[in-house]
Amino acid sequence: MLGKSYDELVMGEKASFTKTISEYDVYSFAGITADQNPAHINEIYANETFFKKRIAHGMLVSSLISTVLGMNLPGPGTIYMKQNLSFLVPVYFGDTITAEVEVIEKLEEKKRIRLKTTCINQDGKIVVDGEALVSPPRK
Amino acid sequence: MLGKSYDELVMGEKASFTKTISEYDVYSFAGITADQNPAHINEIYANETFFKKRIAHGMLVSSLISTVLGMNLPGPGTIYMKQNLSFLVPVYFGDTITAEVEVIEKLEEKKRIRLKTTCINQDGKIVVDGEALVSPPRK
Amino acid sequence: MLGKSYDELVMGEKASFTKTISEYDVYSFAGITADQNPAHINEIYANETFFKKRIAHGMLVSSLISTVLGMNLPGPGTIYMKQNLSFLVPVYFGDTITAEVEVIEKLEEKKRIRLKTTCINQDGKIVVDGEALVSPPRK
Amino acid sequence: MLGKSYDELVMGEKASFTKTISEYDVYSFAGITADQNPAHINEIYANETFFKKRIAHGMLVSSLISTVLGMNLPGPGTIYMKQNLSFLVPVYFGDTITAEVEVIEKLEEKKRIRLKTTCINQDGKIVVDGEALVSPPRK
Repeated sequence: MLGKSYDELVMGEKASFTKTISEYDVYSFAGITADQNPAHINEIYANETFFKKRIAHGMLVSSLISTVLGMNLPGPGTIYMKQNLSFLVPVYFGDTITAEVEVIEKLEEKKRIRLKTTCINQDGKIVVDGEALVSPPRK
Repeated sequence: MLGKSYDELVMGEKASFTKTISEYDVYSFAGITADQNPAHINEIYANETFFKKRIAHGMLVSSLISTVLGMNLPGPGTIYMKQNLSFLVPVYFGDTITAEVEVIEKLEEKKRIRLKTTCINQDGKIVVDGEALVSPPRK
Repeated sequence: MLGKSYDELVMGEKASFTKTISEYDVYSFAGITADQNPAHINEIYANETFFKKRIAHGMLVSSLISTVLGMNLPGPGTIYMKQNLSFLVPVYFGDTITAEVEVIEKLEEKKRIRLKTTCINQDGKIVVDGEALVSPPRK
Repeated sequence: MLGKSYDELVMGEKASFTKTISEYDVYSFAGITADQNPAHINEIYANETFFKKRIAHGMLVSSLISTVLGMNLPGPGTIYMKQNLSFLVPVYFGDTITAEVEVIEKLEEKKRIRLKTTCINQDGKIVVDGEALVSPPRK
Protein backbone atom coordinates (compact mmCIF):
# COMPACT_ATOMS: atom_id res chain seq x y z
CA MET A 1 0.00 0.00 0.00
CA LEU A 2 3.05 2.31 0.18
CA GLY A 3 4.40 4.42 -2.68
CA LYS A 4 8.01 4.70 -3.78
CA SER A 5 10.79 5.18 -1.24
CA TYR A 6 13.63 7.70 -1.55
CA ASP A 7 15.92 5.03 -3.01
CA GLU A 8 13.36 3.86 -5.56
CA LEU A 9 12.76 7.35 -6.96
CA VAL A 10 14.74 8.28 -10.05
CA MET A 11 15.73 11.73 -11.32
CA GLY A 12 13.44 12.77 -14.17
CA GLU A 13 10.70 10.31 -13.20
CA LYS A 14 7.21 11.67 -13.97
CA ALA A 15 3.55 10.97 -13.20
CA SER A 16 0.35 12.80 -14.01
CA PHE A 17 -3.41 12.94 -13.47
CA THR A 18 -5.95 14.49 -15.82
CA LYS A 19 -9.47 15.74 -15.12
CA THR A 20 -12.04 17.88 -16.88
CA ILE A 21 -12.94 20.58 -14.33
CA SER A 22 -16.72 20.79 -13.99
CA GLU A 23 -19.04 23.42 -12.56
CA TYR A 24 -19.76 20.86 -9.84
CA ASP A 25 -16.07 20.75 -8.88
CA VAL A 26 -15.85 24.52 -8.58
CA TYR A 27 -19.12 24.85 -6.67
CA SER A 28 -18.20 22.01 -4.29
CA PHE A 29 -14.79 23.56 -3.70
CA ALA A 30 -16.44 26.94 -3.07
CA GLY A 31 -18.70 25.19 -0.57
CA ILE A 32 -16.05 23.38 1.45
CA THR A 33 -13.53 26.25 1.47
CA ALA A 34 -16.08 29.08 1.70
CA ASP A 35 -14.20 30.81 -1.12
CA GLN A 36 -17.41 32.06 -2.66
CA ASN A 37 -15.66 34.80 -4.61
CA PRO A 38 -18.04 36.00 -7.36
CA ALA A 39 -15.38 35.24 -9.99
CA HIS A 40 -16.17 31.57 -9.34
CA ILE A 41 -19.91 31.47 -8.74
CA ASN A 42 -21.52 34.62 -10.20
CA GLU A 43 -21.77 34.44 -13.96
CA ILE A 44 -23.13 37.98 -14.41
CA TYR A 45 -20.27 39.41 -12.36
CA ALA A 46 -17.73 37.18 -14.12
CA ASN A 47 -18.90 38.35 -17.55
CA GLU A 48 -17.79 41.87 -16.61
CA THR A 49 -14.32 40.84 -15.42
CA PHE A 50 -11.08 40.62 -17.37
CA PHE A 51 -11.61 36.82 -17.56
CA LYS A 52 -15.12 37.16 -19.12
CA LYS A 53 -16.40 33.89 -17.59
CA ARG A 54 -16.49 32.14 -14.24
CA ILE A 55 -13.10 30.61 -13.46
CA ALA A 56 -11.98 27.71 -11.28
CA HIS A 57 -10.15 28.44 -8.04
CA GLY A 58 -6.39 28.38 -8.50
CA MET A 59 -6.13 26.26 -5.37
CA LEU A 60 -8.60 23.70 -6.76
CA VAL A 61 -6.58 23.29 -9.93
CA SER A 62 -3.35 23.14 -7.93
CA SER A 63 -4.77 20.46 -5.67
CA LEU A 64 -4.50 17.99 -8.54
CA ILE A 65 -0.74 18.17 -7.89
CA SER A 66 -1.36 16.78 -4.42
CA THR A 67 -3.38 13.98 -6.07
CA VAL A 68 -0.41 12.85 -8.13
CA LEU A 69 2.04 13.17 -5.24
CA GLY A 70 -0.19 11.25 -2.83
CA MET A 71 -1.57 8.65 -5.21
CA ASN A 72 1.24 7.99 -7.70
CA LEU A 73 4.63 9.62 -7.27
CA PRO A 74 5.86 8.99 -4.64
CA GLY A 75 2.36 7.70 -3.66
CA PRO A 76 0.77 6.63 -0.35
CA GLY A 77 2.91 7.27 2.71
CA THR A 78 4.39 10.48 1.28
CA ILE A 79 4.62 13.44 3.65
CA TYR A 80 3.90 16.68 1.82
CA MET A 81 6.24 19.39 3.14
CA LYS A 82 6.22 22.39 0.81
CA GLN A 83 4.48 23.62 -2.31
CA ASN A 84 5.18 26.79 -4.31
CA LEU A 85 2.58 27.88 -6.83
CA SER A 86 2.36 30.48 -9.59
CA PHE A 87 -1.11 30.92 -11.08
CA LEU A 88 -0.40 31.84 -14.70
CA VAL A 89 -3.53 31.29 -16.79
CA PRO A 90 -7.20 31.16 -15.75
CA VAL A 91 -8.97 27.78 -15.85
CA TYR A 92 -12.53 27.79 -17.14
CA PHE A 93 -15.33 25.31 -16.46
CA GLY A 94 -14.90 22.44 -18.91
CA ASP A 95 -11.13 22.81 -19.24
CA THR A 96 -9.23 19.53 -19.07
CA ILE A 97 -6.26 19.89 -16.73
CA THR A 98 -3.25 17.61 -16.46
CA ALA A 99 -1.24 17.87 -13.25
CA GLU A 100 2.27 16.57 -13.78
CA VAL A 101 5.05 16.04 -11.28
CA GLU A 102 8.70 15.33 -12.07
CA VAL A 103 11.55 14.41 -9.73
CA ILE A 104 14.16 17.19 -10.09
CA GLU A 105 16.32 16.77 -6.99
CA LYS A 106 17.13 14.11 -4.41
CA LEU A 107 18.21 15.65 -1.11
CA GLU A 108 20.36 12.90 0.34
CA GLU A 109 20.85 14.15 3.88
CA LYS A 110 17.19 14.26 4.91
CA LYS A 111 15.98 11.83 2.20
CA ARG A 112 13.67 14.39 0.65
CA ILE A 113 12.58 14.84 -2.94
CA ARG A 114 12.07 18.06 -4.85
CA LEU A 115 9.63 17.89 -7.76
CA LYS A 116 8.68 20.24 -10.56
CA THR A 117 4.88 20.52 -10.49
CA THR A 118 2.84 21.87 -13.38
CA CYS A 119 -0.81 22.00 -14.38
CA ILE A 120 -1.39 22.17 -18.13
CA ASN A 121 -4.67 22.79 -19.95
CA GLN A 122 -6.07 21.05 -23.05
CA ASP A 123 -4.26 23.58 -25.27
CA GLY A 124 -0.88 22.73 -23.76
CA LYS A 125 -0.64 25.98 -21.79
CA ILE A 126 0.91 25.88 -18.32
CA VAL A 127 -1.82 27.24 -16.04
CA VAL A 128 -0.04 26.59 -12.72
CA ASP A 129 3.69 26.28 -12.25
CA GLY A 130 5.66 25.44 -9.14
CA GLU A 131 7.70 23.04 -7.06
CA ALA A 132 6.99 20.60 -4.25
CA LEU A 133 9.15 19.17 -1.49
CA VAL A 134 8.13 15.79 -0.07
CA SER A 135 9.43 13.12 2.27
CA PRO A 136 8.75 9.81 0.47
CA PRO A 137 7.48 6.75 2.37
CA ARG A 138 10.03 4.83 4.44
CA LYS A 139 9.85 1.05 4.12
CA MET B 1 -18.64 44.31 -4.97
CA LEU B 2 -14.90 45.01 -5.30
CA GLY B 3 -12.34 44.57 -2.52
CA LYS B 4 -9.62 46.98 -1.51
CA SER B 5 -7.38 48.59 -4.12
CA TYR B 6 -3.60 48.88 -3.90
CA ASP B 7 -3.85 52.36 -2.49
CA GLU B 8 -6.41 51.41 0.15
CA LEU B 9 -4.31 48.54 1.51
CA VAL B 10 -2.18 49.32 4.55
CA MET B 11 0.99 47.60 5.77
CA GLY B 12 0.21 45.25 8.66
CA GLU B 13 -3.49 45.03 7.80
CA LYS B 14 -4.96 41.60 8.60
CA ALA B 15 -8.04 39.48 7.93
CA SER B 16 -8.96 35.92 8.78
CA PHE B 17 -11.50 33.13 8.28
CA THR B 18 -12.13 30.24 10.65
CA LYS B 19 -13.71 26.84 9.98
CA THR B 20 -13.96 23.51 11.75
CA ILE B 21 -12.78 20.92 9.22
CA SER B 22 -15.31 18.09 8.97
CA GLU B 23 -15.17 14.56 7.58
CA TYR B 24 -17.52 15.88 4.89
CA ASP B 25 -14.99 18.54 3.87
CA VAL B 26 -12.18 16.01 3.56
CA TYR B 27 -14.28 13.41 1.74
CA SER B 28 -15.67 16.02 -0.67
CA PHE B 29 -12.20 17.37 -1.33
CA ALA B 30 -10.94 13.81 -1.94
CA GLY B 31 -13.79 13.39 -4.41
CA ILE B 32 -13.31 16.54 -6.46
CA THR B 33 -9.51 16.33 -6.56
CA ALA B 34 -9.33 12.51 -6.79
CA ASP B 35 -6.77 12.63 -3.98
CA GLN B 36 -8.08 9.48 -2.32
CA ASN B 37 -4.83 8.84 -0.46
CA PRO B 38 -5.56 6.33 2.35
CA ALA B 39 -4.22 8.82 4.92
CA HIS B 40 -7.43 10.78 4.29
CA ILE B 41 -10.11 8.13 3.73
CA ASN B 42 -8.97 4.83 5.30
CA GLU B 43 -9.22 4.86 9.08
CA ILE B 44 -7.62 1.43 9.57
CA TYR B 45 -4.61 2.45 7.48
CA ALA B 46 -4.40 5.86 9.16
CA ASN B 47 -4.32 4.25 12.62
CA GLU B 48 -1.05 2.58 11.63
CA THR B 49 0.60 5.76 10.35
CA PHE B 50 2.75 8.24 12.24
CA PHE B 51 -0.32 10.52 12.43
CA LYS B 52 -2.52 7.82 14.07
CA LYS B 53 -5.77 9.15 12.56
CA ARG B 54 -7.14 10.26 9.22
CA ILE B 55 -5.85 13.74 8.35
CA ALA B 56 -7.14 16.55 6.15
CA HIS B 57 -5.41 17.31 2.86
CA GLY B 58 -2.80 20.05 3.26
CA MET B 59 -4.17 21.71 0.15
CA LEU B 60 -7.69 21.75 1.60
CA VAL B 61 -6.51 23.51 4.75
CA SER B 62 -4.39 25.92 2.69
CA SER B 63 -7.33 26.77 0.47
CA LEU B 64 -8.81 28.72 3.36
CA ILE B 65 -6.06 31.28 2.63
CA SER B 66 -7.55 31.78 -0.82
CA THR B 67 -10.90 32.31 0.89
CA VAL B 68 -9.59 35.25 2.92
CA LEU B 69 -7.71 36.77 -0.02
CA GLY B 70 -10.69 36.51 -2.37
CA MET B 71 -13.46 37.35 0.07
CA ASN B 72 -11.88 39.86 2.50
CA LEU B 73 -8.38 41.14 1.99
CA PRO B 74 -8.01 42.44 -0.64
CA GLY B 75 -11.42 40.84 -1.53
CA PRO B 76 -13.37 40.41 -4.81
CA GLY B 77 -11.49 41.46 -7.91
CA THR B 78 -8.14 40.28 -6.56
CA ILE B 79 -5.94 38.34 -8.98
CA TYR B 80 -4.09 35.56 -7.14
CA MET B 81 -0.56 35.32 -8.54
CA LYS B 82 1.61 33.22 -6.25
CA GLN B 83 1.34 31.14 -3.09
CA ASN B 84 4.11 29.45 -1.13
CA LEU B 85 3.11 26.83 1.42
CA SER B 86 4.86 24.88 4.17
CA PHE B 87 2.77 22.09 5.72
CA LEU B 88 3.99 21.97 9.32
CA VAL B 89 1.46 20.14 11.49
CA PRO B 90 -1.24 17.60 10.51
CA VAL B 91 -4.89 18.70 10.65
CA TYR B 92 -7.38 16.18 12.01
CA PHE B 93 -11.13 15.90 11.39
CA GLY B 94 -12.79 18.27 13.84
CA ASP B 95 -9.86 20.70 14.10
CA THR B 96 -10.83 24.37 13.92
CA ILE B 97 -8.54 26.21 11.54
CA THR B 98 -8.05 29.96 11.24
CA ALA B 99 -6.51 31.19 8.00
CA GLU B 100 -4.96 34.62 8.47
CA VAL B 101 -3.43 36.94 5.92
CA GLU B 102 -1.37 40.07 6.64
CA VAL B 103 -0.08 42.71 4.25
CA ILE B 104 3.73 42.63 4.52
CA GLU B 105 4.87 44.44 1.39
CA LYS B 106 3.50 46.87 -1.19
CA LEU B 107 5.27 46.52 -4.54
CA GLU B 108 4.81 49.96 -6.00
CA GLU B 109 5.94 49.42 -9.58
CA LYS B 110 3.43 46.72 -10.52
CA LYS B 111 0.93 47.61 -7.74
CA ARG B 112 1.15 44.19 -6.17
CA ILE B 113 0.79 43.12 -2.55
CA ARG B 114 2.77 40.49 -0.67
CA LEU B 115 1.01 38.89 2.30
CA LYS B 116 2.07 36.58 5.10
CA THR B 117 -0.40 33.67 5.10
CA THR B 118 -0.81 31.29 8.03
CA CYS B 119 -3.29 28.60 9.09
CA ILE B 120 -3.48 28.10 12.85
CA ASN B 121 -5.32 25.33 14.72
CA GLN B 122 -7.46 25.56 17.87
CA ASP B 123 -4.36 25.08 20.03
CA GLY B 124 -2.61 28.07 18.47
CA LYS B 125 -0.19 25.96 16.46
CA ILE B 126 0.76 27.11 12.97
CA VAL B 127 -0.24 24.21 10.73
CA VAL B 128 0.47 25.91 7.38
CA ASP B 129 2.87 28.79 6.83
CA GLY B 130 3.61 30.77 3.69
CA GLU B 131 3.28 33.89 1.59
CA ALA B 132 1.00 35.08 -1.18
CA LEU B 133 1.44 37.59 -3.97
CA VAL B 134 -1.71 39.24 -5.34
CA SER B 135 -2.77 42.02 -7.67
CA PRO B 136 -5.55 43.88 -5.84
CA PRO B 137 -8.67 45.10 -7.66
CA ARG B 138 -8.34 48.28 -9.77
CA LYS B 139 -11.14 50.77 -9.39
CA MET C 1 -43.58 3.46 6.59
CA LEU C 2 -43.17 -0.16 5.43
CA GLY C 3 -43.44 -1.33 1.82
CA LYS C 4 -45.40 -4.32 0.52
CA SER C 5 -45.15 -7.69 2.25
CA TYR C 6 -44.63 -11.00 0.48
CA ASP C 7 -48.36 -11.67 0.50
CA GLU C 8 -49.25 -8.24 -0.89
CA LEU C 9 -46.89 -8.55 -3.87
CA VAL C 10 -48.44 -9.75 -7.13
CA MET C 11 -46.76 -11.48 -10.07
CA GLY C 12 -46.17 -8.98 -12.90
CA GLU C 13 -46.43 -5.97 -10.60
CA LYS C 14 -44.13 -3.14 -11.73
CA ALA C 15 -42.68 0.12 -10.47
CA SER C 16 -40.16 2.56 -11.88
CA PHE C 17 -38.08 5.66 -11.23
CA THR C 18 -36.75 8.07 -13.85
CA LYS C 19 -33.85 10.51 -13.66
CA THR C 20 -31.80 12.58 -16.09
CA ILE C 21 -28.16 11.73 -15.30
CA SER C 22 -26.14 14.92 -14.85
CA GLU C 23 -22.44 15.70 -14.85
CA TYR C 24 -22.92 16.40 -11.14
CA ASP C 25 -24.23 12.86 -10.57
CA VAL C 26 -21.26 11.28 -12.34
CA TYR C 27 -18.66 13.53 -10.70
CA SER C 28 -20.19 13.00 -7.25
CA PHE C 29 -20.28 9.26 -7.78
CA ALA C 30 -16.65 9.33 -8.95
CA GLY C 31 -15.83 11.19 -5.75
CA ILE C 32 -17.56 8.94 -3.24
CA THR C 33 -16.50 5.68 -4.90
CA ALA C 34 -13.03 6.90 -5.98
CA ASP C 35 -13.80 5.50 -9.44
CA GLN C 36 -12.08 8.38 -11.24
CA ASN C 37 -11.64 6.38 -14.44
CA PRO C 38 -10.85 8.86 -17.27
CA ALA C 39 -13.86 7.55 -19.24
CA HIS C 40 -15.99 9.40 -16.68
CA ILE C 41 -14.03 12.56 -15.86
CA ASN C 42 -11.61 13.32 -18.72
CA GLU C 43 -13.35 14.72 -21.77
CA ILE C 44 -10.23 14.78 -23.98
CA TYR C 45 -9.52 11.11 -23.22
CA ALA C 46 -13.18 10.15 -23.67
CA ASN C 47 -13.31 11.79 -27.10
CA GLU C 48 -10.69 9.27 -28.26
CA THR C 49 -12.52 6.22 -26.91
CA PHE C 50 -15.04 3.98 -28.66
CA PHE C 51 -17.78 5.84 -26.75
CA LYS C 52 -16.63 9.31 -28.00
CA LYS C 53 -17.85 11.14 -24.88
CA ARG C 54 -17.64 10.88 -21.10
CA ILE C 55 -20.00 8.16 -19.86
CA ALA C 56 -21.77 7.52 -16.57
CA HIS C 57 -20.57 4.68 -14.33
CA GLY C 58 -22.55 1.48 -14.95
CA MET C 59 -22.94 1.07 -11.20
CA LEU C 60 -24.39 4.57 -10.86
CA VAL C 61 -27.04 3.87 -13.47
CA SER C 62 -27.75 0.47 -11.92
CA SER C 63 -28.16 2.00 -8.50
CA LEU C 64 -31.47 3.46 -9.66
CA ILE C 65 -32.76 -0.13 -9.45
CA SER C 66 -32.01 -0.12 -5.73
CA THR C 67 -33.96 3.15 -5.53
CA VAL C 68 -37.12 1.51 -6.89
CA LEU C 69 -36.72 -1.62 -4.76
CA GLY C 70 -36.12 0.33 -1.58
CA MET C 71 -38.55 3.18 -2.13
CA ASN C 72 -41.45 1.63 -4.07
CA LEU C 73 -41.57 -2.07 -4.80
CA PRO C 74 -41.46 -3.70 -2.31
CA GLY C 75 -40.40 -0.41 -0.59
CA PRO C 76 -39.04 0.43 2.88
CA GLY C 77 -38.17 -2.59 5.02
CA THR C 78 -37.00 -4.63 2.03
CA ILE C 79 -33.77 -6.57 2.48
CA TYR C 80 -31.74 -6.54 -0.73
CA MET C 81 -30.14 -9.96 -1.21
CA LYS C 82 -28.84 -10.33 -4.76
CA GLN C 83 -28.48 -8.29 -7.94
CA ASN C 84 -27.26 -9.46 -11.34
CA LEU C 85 -26.34 -6.80 -13.87
CA SER C 86 -25.45 -6.71 -17.57
CA PHE C 87 -24.18 -3.35 -18.82
CA LEU C 88 -25.40 -3.23 -22.43
CA VAL C 89 -25.32 0.35 -23.71
CA PRO C 90 -23.29 3.36 -22.50
CA VAL C 91 -25.12 6.15 -20.67
CA TYR C 92 -24.07 9.70 -21.50
CA PHE C 93 -24.38 12.87 -19.40
CA GLY C 94 -27.90 14.18 -20.01
CA ASP C 95 -29.48 10.80 -20.75
CA THR C 96 -32.81 10.19 -19.02
CA ILE C 97 -32.84 6.74 -17.45
CA THR C 98 -35.88 4.80 -16.23
CA ALA C 99 -35.16 1.98 -13.79
CA GLU C 100 -38.00 -0.52 -13.81
CA VAL C 101 -38.56 -3.55 -11.60
CA GLU C 102 -41.13 -6.30 -12.14
CA VAL C 103 -42.10 -9.19 -9.86
CA ILE C 104 -41.32 -12.38 -11.80
CA GLU C 105 -41.25 -15.04 -9.09
CA LYS C 106 -42.52 -15.56 -5.56
CA LEU C 107 -40.34 -18.02 -3.64
CA GLU C 108 -42.81 -19.38 -1.11
CA GLU C 109 -40.51 -21.28 1.24
CA LYS C 110 -38.31 -18.36 2.27
CA LYS C 111 -40.83 -15.64 1.33
CA ARG C 112 -38.52 -14.06 -1.18
CA ILE C 113 -39.25 -12.21 -4.40
CA ARG C 114 -37.37 -12.35 -7.68
CA LEU C 115 -37.67 -9.28 -9.91
CA LYS C 116 -36.67 -8.44 -13.43
CA THR C 117 -34.68 -5.20 -13.27
CA THR C 118 -33.98 -3.00 -16.29
CA CYS C 119 -32.68 0.49 -16.95
CA ILE C 120 -33.93 2.05 -20.17
CA ASN C 121 -32.75 5.29 -21.80
CA GLN C 122 -34.82 8.04 -23.43
CA ASP C 123 -34.68 6.20 -26.78
CA GLY C 124 -36.22 3.05 -25.31
CA LYS C 125 -32.94 1.11 -25.34
CA ILE C 126 -32.19 -1.25 -22.46
CA VAL C 127 -28.91 0.04 -21.04
CA VAL C 128 -28.73 -2.29 -18.02
CA ASP C 129 -30.48 -5.64 -17.71
CA GLY C 130 -30.64 -8.01 -14.76
CA GLU C 131 -32.50 -9.59 -11.88
CA ALA C 132 -32.83 -8.92 -8.17
CA LEU C 133 -33.69 -11.14 -5.21
CA VAL C 134 -35.21 -9.46 -2.17
CA SER C 135 -36.83 -10.32 1.14
CA PRO C 136 -39.88 -8.02 1.41
CA PRO C 137 -40.82 -6.35 4.69
CA ARG C 138 -42.57 -8.51 7.30
CA LYS C 139 -45.53 -6.90 9.02
CA MET D 1 -3.09 5.65 -19.72
CA LEU D 2 -4.49 2.19 -20.50
CA GLY D 3 -4.74 -0.69 -18.03
CA LYS D 4 -3.70 -4.29 -18.62
CA SER D 5 -4.61 -6.08 -21.83
CA TYR D 6 -6.04 -9.60 -22.03
CA ASP D 7 -2.58 -11.05 -22.65
CA GLU D 8 -1.00 -9.18 -19.74
CA LEU D 9 -3.56 -10.42 -17.21
CA VAL D 10 -2.57 -13.47 -15.18
CA MET D 11 -4.79 -16.03 -13.46
CA GLY D 12 -4.95 -15.33 -9.74
CA GLU D 13 -3.85 -11.70 -10.12
CA LYS D 14 -5.48 -9.43 -7.51
CA ALA D 15 -6.00 -5.75 -6.76
CA SER D 16 -7.94 -3.90 -4.08
CA PHE D 17 -9.14 -0.53 -2.84
CA THR D 18 -10.01 0.37 0.74
CA LYS D 19 -12.20 3.16 2.09
CA THR D 20 -13.85 4.04 5.38
CA ILE D 21 -17.52 4.60 4.48
CA SER D 22 -18.70 7.92 5.91
CA GLU D 23 -22.12 9.39 6.57
CA TYR D 24 -21.26 11.84 3.79
CA ASP D 25 -20.76 8.97 1.33
CA VAL D 26 -24.13 7.44 2.17
CA TYR D 27 -25.98 10.77 2.09
CA SER D 28 -24.35 11.79 -1.20
CA PHE D 29 -25.20 8.41 -2.70
CA ALA D 30 -28.78 8.77 -1.44
CA GLY D 31 -28.87 12.17 -3.12
CA ILE D 32 -27.60 11.19 -6.53
CA THR D 33 -29.54 7.92 -6.77
CA ALA D 34 -32.68 9.13 -4.94
CA ASP D 35 -32.52 5.95 -2.85
CA GLN D 36 -33.64 7.80 0.25
CA ASN D 37 -34.77 4.61 1.98
CA PRO D 38 -35.13 5.36 5.72
CA ALA D 39 -32.72 2.51 6.52
CA HIS D 40 -29.99 4.80 5.17
CA ILE D 41 -30.99 8.29 6.25
CA ASN D 42 -33.44 8.03 9.19
CA GLU D 43 -31.68 7.13 12.41
CA ILE D 44 -34.86 6.84 14.50
CA TYR D 45 -36.38 4.44 11.97
CA ALA D 46 -33.11 2.53 11.63
CA ASN D 47 -32.87 2.03 15.41
CA GLU D 48 -36.09 0.02 15.23
CA THR D 49 -34.95 -2.23 12.37
CA PHE D 50 -33.18 -5.57 12.54
CA PHE D 51 -29.93 -3.73 11.73
CA LYS D 52 -30.30 -1.30 14.68
CA LYS D 53 -28.41 1.53 12.94
CA ARG D 54 -28.38 3.33 9.61
CA ILE D 55 -26.65 1.21 6.98
CA ALA D 56 -24.84 2.01 3.74
CA HIS D 57 -26.52 1.16 0.42
CA GLY D 58 -25.42 -2.24 -0.86
CA MET D 59 -24.89 -0.67 -4.27
CA LEU D 60 -22.61 2.01 -2.82
CA VAL D 61 -20.39 -0.58 -1.16
CA SER D 62 -20.44 -2.71 -4.33
CA SER D 63 -19.42 0.26 -6.45
CA LEU D 64 -15.94 0.07 -4.92
CA ILE D 65 -15.55 -3.07 -7.07
CA SER D 66 -16.02 -0.91 -10.15
CA THR D 67 -13.31 1.40 -8.75
CA VAL D 68 -10.75 -1.42 -8.68
CA LEU D 69 -11.76 -2.77 -12.10
CA GLY D 70 -11.65 0.66 -13.75
CA MET D 71 -8.66 2.11 -11.95
CA ASN D 72 -6.34 -0.86 -11.30
CA LEU D 73 -7.19 -4.30 -12.64
CA PRO D 74 -7.53 -4.31 -15.59
CA GLY D 75 -7.61 -0.47 -15.29
CA PRO D 76 -8.50 2.37 -17.70
CA GLY D 77 -9.94 1.23 -21.03
CA THR D 78 -11.77 -1.73 -19.46
CA ILE D 79 -15.34 -2.32 -20.64
CA TYR D 80 -17.51 -3.51 -17.75
CA MET D 81 -19.93 -6.16 -19.04
CA LYS D 82 -21.51 -8.02 -16.12
CA GLN D 83 -21.59 -7.93 -12.35
CA ASN D 84 -23.31 -10.38 -9.98
CA LEU D 85 -23.73 -9.32 -6.38
CA SER D 86 -24.82 -10.99 -3.14
CA PHE D 87 -25.33 -8.61 -0.24
CA LEU D 88 -24.37 -10.71 2.79
CA VAL D 89 -23.66 -8.45 5.77
CA PRO D 90 -24.81 -4.88 6.47
CA VAL D 91 -22.24 -2.07 6.26
CA TYR D 92 -22.45 0.62 8.92
CA PHE D 93 -21.23 4.22 8.81
CA GLY D 94 -17.55 4.15 9.78
CA ASP D 95 -16.89 0.62 8.51
CA THR D 96 -13.69 0.29 6.49
CA ILE D 97 -14.38 -1.70 3.34
CA THR D 98 -11.84 -3.37 1.07
CA ALA D 99 -13.06 -4.21 -2.43
CA GLU D 100 -10.90 -6.94 -3.94
CA VAL D 101 -10.94 -8.38 -7.45
CA GLU D 102 -9.15 -11.52 -8.61
CA VAL D 103 -8.75 -12.91 -12.12
CA ILE D 104 -10.42 -16.36 -12.10
CA GLU D 105 -10.96 -17.11 -15.79
CA LYS D 106 -9.60 -15.98 -19.15
CA LEU D 107 -12.15 -16.48 -21.91
CA GLU D 108 -9.93 -16.86 -24.96
CA GLU D 109 -12.47 -16.64 -27.75
CA LYS D 110 -13.82 -13.19 -26.97
CA LYS D 111 -10.77 -12.03 -24.91
CA ARG D 112 -12.82 -11.49 -21.79
CA ILE D 113 -11.88 -11.85 -18.14
CA ARG D 114 -13.97 -13.22 -15.31
CA LEU D 115 -13.08 -11.95 -11.84
CA LYS D 116 -14.08 -12.89 -8.32
CA THR D 117 -15.22 -9.69 -6.63
CA THR D 118 -15.57 -9.33 -2.87
CA CYS D 119 -16.04 -6.52 -0.39
CA ILE D 120 -14.66 -7.25 3.08
CA ASN D 121 -15.11 -5.19 6.26
CA GLN D 122 -12.57 -4.31 8.95
CA ASP D 123 -13.40 -7.54 10.81
CA GLY D 124 -12.59 -9.68 7.77
CA LYS D 125 -16.22 -10.51 7.03
CA ILE D 126 -17.30 -10.72 3.40
CA VAL D 127 -20.08 -8.15 3.10
CA VAL D 128 -20.60 -8.40 -0.67
CA ASP D 129 -19.71 -11.39 -2.81
CA GLY D 130 -19.92 -11.80 -6.57
CA GLU D 131 -18.30 -12.01 -9.96
CA ALA D 132 -17.57 -9.59 -12.78
CA LEU D 133 -17.06 -10.05 -16.50
CA VAL D 134 -14.96 -7.45 -18.30
CA SER D 135 -13.38 -6.81 -21.68
CA PRO D 136 -9.87 -5.52 -20.91
CA PRO D 137 -8.32 -2.65 -22.90
CA ARG D 138 -6.97 -3.48 -26.37
CA LYS D 139 -3.60 -1.98 -27.20
